[in-house]
Amino acid sequence: MAALLMAVFANGLEPHEFTALTDAMLQSGARFPKGGHPPWIDKHSTGGVGDKVSLVLVPLMASCGVPVPTMAGRGLGHTGGTLDKLEAIPGFSTQLSMAAARAQMDRIGAFFMGATADIAPADRKLYALRDATGTIESIPLIAASIMSKKLAEGISGLVLDVKWGSGSFLPETDRAMELAKMMIEVGESRGCRCVALLTAMDRPLGRACGNALETAEAIAALRGEGPDDLMTVTYALGAEMLLLAGGAESAAGAHQILREAIGSGRAAEKFREMVDAQGGDPRVVDDPAILPRAPVEKILEANMDGYVRQVEPRIIGQAIVTMGGGRSAMDDAIDHAAGMVLSVKPGDVVEKGQPVARVAGRDVPTVERGLTALDRALRIGGERPSLTALISHRVTADGVAVVDH
Amino acid sequence: MAALLMAVFANGLEPHEFTALTDAMLQSGARFPKGGHPPWIDKHSTGGVGDKVSLVLVPLMASCGVPVPTMAGRGLGHTGGTLDKLEAIPGFSTQLSMAAARAQMDRIGAFFMGATADIAPADRKLYALRDATGTIESIPLIAASIMSKKLAEGISGLVLDVKWGSGSFLPETDRAMELAKMMIEVGESRGCRCVALLTAMDRPLGRACGNALETAEAIAALRGEGPDDLMTVTYALGAEMLLLAGGAESAAGAHQILREAIGSGRAAEKFREMVDAQGGDPRVVDDPAILPRAPVEKILEANMDGYVRQVEPRIIGQAIVTMGGGRSAMDDAIDHAAGMVLSVKPGDVVEKGQPVARVAGRDVPTVERGLTALDRALRIGGERPSLTALISHRVTADGVAVVDH
Repeated sequence: MAALLMAVFANGLEPHEFTALTDAMLQSGARFPKGGHPPWIDKHSTGGVGDKVSLVLVPLMASCGVPVPTMAGRGLGHTGGTLDKLEAIPGFSTQLSMAAARAQMDRIGAFFMGATADIAPADRKLYALRDATGTIESIPLIAASIMSKKLAEGISGLVLDVKWGSGSFLPETDRAMELAKMMIEVGESRGCRCVALLTAMDRPLGRACGNALETAEAIAALRGEGPDDLMTVTYALGAEMLLLAGGAESAAGAHQILREAIGSGRAAEKFREMVDAQGGDPRVVDDPAILPRAPVEKILEANMDGYVRQVEPRIIGQAIVTMGGGRSAMDDAIDHAAGMVLSVKPGDVVEKGQPVARVAGRDVPTVERGLTALDRALRIGGERPSLTALISHRVTADGVAVVDH
Repeated sequence: MAALLMAVFANGLEPHEFTALTDAMLQSGARFPKGGHPPWIDKHSTGGVGDKVSLVLVPLMASCGVPVPTMAGRGLGHTGGTLDKLEAIPGFSTQLSMAAARAQMDRIGAFFMGATADIAPADRKLYALRDATGTIESIPLIAASIMSKKLAEGISGLVLDVKWGSGSFLPETDRAMELAKMMIEVGESRGCRCVALLTAMDRPLGRACGNALETAEAIAALRGEGPDDLMTVTYALGAEMLLLAGGAESAAGAHQILREAIGSGRAAEKFREMVDAQGGDPRVVDDPAILPRAPVEKILEANMDGYVRQVEPRIIGQAIVTMGGGRSAMDDAIDHAAGMVLSVKPGDVVEKGQPVARVAGRDVPTVERGLTALDRALRIGGERPSLTALISHRVTADGVAVVDH
């Protein structure tokens, strides 16, 4: 198997080989029976820095009548994980049995859980072997790993947020496109409608980076106070999910439904229900102050006048790991409160001395480490930077459309 | 290790990586201390059909004062092995301890033995893993396997017979050249002078194919009655060995010394000494009839007038395996007597009905199988074929020379 993984790493897989591998991994374990009406739709992100979209999107979709069964992951290295962010909420449990998850789906229309030991167990074994053999970064192996777990969810549709840029694991759009196409192909061939959006991860998404800080930002977003870039990605993915579920006739109609669900408070209310169902303190929706808060905070100020030319997400993600807010190895404990909130984005004009970020950590040296990293990550200069599109491409089984949003 | 082998198979090795691998394999076991004066010189062939050169060359060189410590191999698949050919001689043992081999070197100047368990044990383990992972046919892995064993022999020089063509494992000259260059590079860097000749294995070498038949042909060659192509290759390799050992001033001088050693009977006498020392019946040199002989023999006749256009060695090698004269798996027992003797070569003119080969085996169905295969292997046609050079290139650390012999 080690030799096979290396052969795939070196030479890729033909489409029929890739499909056979994904099938074999899927069939190595249990799966939810396919959901009924309305069809179950899930969303998957390939991961990045500041990516709290799932926390907003899952209750939002459930509040619009689209059931979302989410088996999510944990953070590793510079990218965060949805389960870690949710566990910042006091009492929140992500360890659901398949029966409990199923019951919660029927009652609330959404859950967040970690993949149980009986979902695609081959994937866990192969991942450990990929780690040992240096074959993690193989597009077909990544695609098979994601899709073997997603196809076990009993979903009829899947919207993929495939991120490119230094904060993701794929620096270039062409590799992200290859991954998107592979996942779509195997999903569609197994009866799951798939749409992928390629989104930029050359800067963090939203303002908050770090588990509790991101959860607080997600709650703000559910209450209509989310930053523009986070809402753009959330609405775009949500519109695709609504269209796949048959809950809207057009993208414009879908956007209207989603905005109304947030504006009316129904999305936040759904989040409260879900938190309550999974053992978390539901008051968090009204009072994010019950989330863990770091004892030390410091402000970073701009060191010159100019444009924010770059906010390097990988440096920020790695800094959060060194601050205790992420993991180097899968069994590291994490400090949910550690992190930073950026108040500027690439392209913003800043003045020397203006506060540009707030860094939070368990003690002064930790916060100093965060400030030092942030100082490297955040580049200010005299020239206005050219910005990449937040959403560059929409990929379906029918082809690729340039979005440039 | 399986992943590493596959990575090497797919992507090759940089020179320093290849050297490090060879060193590690060499140092995994015991080695002969380097021979003194005259320096020890060995020869290695990458293997083919009808290749009995070592049986002639080793005693020939020893009779010219060049000590040759030969750790040889067994046949597998369509290619034969030197140890199997020698074991056709009643009583001959190829299982020598390193101490016994060393003593025989001092006394006679030559031995033939199988690699003992303590010579490059990593090679045996890696070979088994290559077999299991489909990574046998990798030039750097082949080169490291050969050279880790050869460098354990304590030799100061090595002459490589690198065969190309369907009867070898490298169909094309460019791959043979790549293998030759890699072996030379690592040998020279470890203090062993190396020369390689690229020789044709698009037809069998000599007339006999099959263990006892080849041993008989080798003895005939030592007595001055060898076929031209066998002698051409033997003298060319021998001249290189003599030059490496400092036993001749020029190639022409070396050829003269070698011919004289055969003509005078000294080479055959050295073979007798060696057979005697290793427990074999020394009378075989005078009376090859004491070699095992198959009970059934049949003659193949030409089925039309014309030129012999092709004698396909791989078909012949594979036929000998099916006749019991070779191995599909390393622990198969073999029938030393099975085989065939061809009386024609590509380019020869034949008449319909003329005997072109003799096939020998344990029973009629076995011999019939051999005849059927031979009928496919031996192509006769009206047009004179273009013949490839028997020896096409001479490769040294200084570069490549076209030989076209």
